[in-house]
Amino acid sequence: MHDDPALQALAAHYQAMPPVAALQLRIAGFDGDCLRLHAPLAAHVNDKGCAFGGSLASLMTLAGWGLVTLRLQRAGLAAEVYVADSSVRYRAPLYANLAAEARLDDGQSWDAACSALREHGRAGIFLQACVRLPDGDIAAEGRARFVAIAQAS
Amino acid sequence: MHDDPALQALAAHYQAMPPVAALQLRIAGFDGDCLRLHAPLAAHVNDKGCAFGGSLASLMTLAGWGLVTLRLQRAGLAAEVYVADSSVRYRAPLYANLAAEARLDDGQSWDAACSALREHGRAGIFLQACVRLPDGDIAAEGRARFVAIAQAS
Repeated sequence: MHDDPALQALAAHYQAMPPVAALQLRIAGFDGDCLRLHAPLAAHVNDKGCAFGGSLASLMTLAGWGLVTLRLQRAGLAAEVYVADSSVRYRAPLYANLAAEARLDDGQSWDAACSALREHGRAGIFLQACVRLPDGDIAAEGRARFVAIAQAS
Repeated sequence: MHDDPALQALAAHYQAMPPVAALQLRIAGFDGDCLRLHAPLAAHVNDKGCAFGGSLASLMTLAGWGLVTLRLQRAGLAAEVYVADSSVRYRAPLYANLAAEARLDDGQSWDAACSALREHGRAGIFLQACVRLPDGDIAAEGRARFVAIAQAS
């Protein structure tokens, strides 16, 4: 369990979605800039004994979605968050538990995203994400664009 | 069940992978050029009542992987098939069961891929895939590059 109520709420939000609950993920850490998710290899193993590519992509997407959700909440903004597009490059097979992390992409700013959401009711936010090998190298990396749409409060 | 032993083997292959079994997919059809997979919305619903983006991406990846596997088998080639990179664009929320389809991308040829695999032991194969809305429009579309590596027989 997390001490931070925002992380507790995000964890509950993840678990309430059947396809996400099936991933058996847990929130491994959040330092304000980077959200990290873990999941056990046993739930994600493919026919070659390594992690299924779709699982790596899903975990990166969920790390990004969670990061946007946490940062908008922290700014006091109520919004629905959607993934709009994403790309993934698979670089090396992963024979260990899954560890995904997401952060803002280069040149992006939370202040700009929050301003756009306040002023226009909508913001596009570019993130980068990766899944690391146990030695810290990259198993898979990706970029995604999320769209946040302000909710009537 | 499928009458075609190749489709029976592919279905068994899918079900043997825990993260794929969790998707509750089934092979809906294969005409030689296009492989179609279905999955129930109930297993893929997100916090907004529509299909989770990661599930759409996974289903498209698996349709592509299955298509490459079937076409190489048909050509008498034994190979390991990996997804190398992929991109997805989410165009509209899907509030219905999932139907993904994959086919060769424009300008690609199975003959060329099979020749490369025979001559060099390796082939890169570009596919396109989509998930359709019930009216036939596109919920999500993507492209992916798969790599096939010849197995010693």
